[in-house]
Amino acid sequence: MPHVYETDGPAIYRESFSIIRREAALERFAVDEEQIAVRMIHAAGMVELAPHILFRDDVVARARAALEQGAPILCDARMISEGITRARLPADNRIICTLWDERVPELAQEMGNTRSAAAVELWRPWLDGAVVAIGNAPTALFHLLNMLEDPQCPRPASIIGCPVGFVGAAESKEALWDSNVAPCCIVRGRLGGSAVTVAAINAIADRKE
Amino acid sequence: MPHVYETDGPAIYRESFSIIRREAALERFAVDEEQIAVRMIHAAGMVELAPHILFRDDVVARARAALEQGAPILCDARMISEGITRARLPADNRIICTLWDERVPELAQEMGNTRSAAAVELWRPWLDGAVVAIGNAPTALFHLLNMLEDPQCPRPASIIGCPVGFVGAAESKEALWDSNVAPCCIVRGRLGGSAVTVAAINAIADRKE
Repeated sequence: MPHVYETDGPAIYRESFSIIRREAALERFAVDEEQIAVRMIHAAGMVELAPHILFRDDVVARARAALEQGAPILCDARMISEGITRARLPADNRIICTLWDERVPELAQEMGNTRSAAAVELWRPWLDGAVVAIGNAPTALFHLLNMLEDPQCPRPASIIGCPVGFVGAAESKEALWDSNVAPCCIVRGRLGGSAVTVAAINAIADRKE
Repeated sequence: MPHVYETDGPAIYRESFSIIRREAALERFAVDEEQIAVRMIHAAGMVELAPHILFRDDVVARARAALEQGAPILCDARMISEGITRARLPADNRIICTLWDERVPELAQEMGNTRSAAAVELWRPWLDGAVVAIGNAPTALFHLLNMLEDPQCPRPASIIGCPVGFVGAAESKEALWDSNVAPCCIVRGRLGGSAVTVAAINAIADRKE
């Protein structure tokens, strides 16, 4: 007997978001933040993500305005750059991931840092006013924060900082949260990752559920 | 003051895996399964994933053997096909994601199903002996299971079935687990996703930590 299941994409989204809104603790979010948090929880499959999601300095409105004005999106991994839904972008925004740039391996060696950090070094030409989406490597976020300690470094419009894992992830996100370098969204602690980061960008890019 | 953090990639991996092995309940896994589970937990940033990871019918050895013999990897989303580390593959294996094939939108409409399910319909030419990696859409997994109810349908060598979410994800994985169609690995319940699926494939492809 064939399996019977919901085959209507929009109905699956509606039902998923309805379950999330019933089960997750979303009361503390502003309206525009709540939409982003719901999609992040959806990507994680985990209503328990809610208390770890933090927004500051009107990051949703400011990242959305940047995208509407054509800002590029700078990603630390191809799982992120490939996951962003092009059709949701308001200005056919450029999506940039420099991790596989041919200069990265040598640059990483020179810097004595990871390839992910070296790839962020290559963001400088696009960094001014950009939306940053870091969902994989704590070293990418730490290196960006160190770059931004130089007042001459171009400033991004906002930072979605959700690297995941056991070494440096929690610390790099706390450093971003405390840094005041740009409006930001983080997932506090070990959780995060490319899917959650993509979900945040897709939700910021277009209010449509 | 610049942030000071671990900048040595291999040291970050070692320390991460060491934390996971200290904190996660891994005792019930066979040795080769444990390595896969550790990477899946690493990708999720969550030792609490451990009890939800299930393996059956020697899936690790059989998927690895298939890859060594050149099997293609069939993925339900580009976040998965792009996340797999090419350098870890034993036979320069082909990685196939049909989700953005131009035939998919019309086929989905004909089938009365999602684009993800229609994309799986297009896997038929490569399905025989393939390694399947589903980490996003429950409808992709359900449709594959329905295709495999036809004894004429070519059989994959193994299925990594980790779709994530609130509608159909848990049910589609239970259906796979109960189906006996191929050796499989699942993440029981709502959890799963592209990063966890990629981690399983990367760990199966190469024992190297």
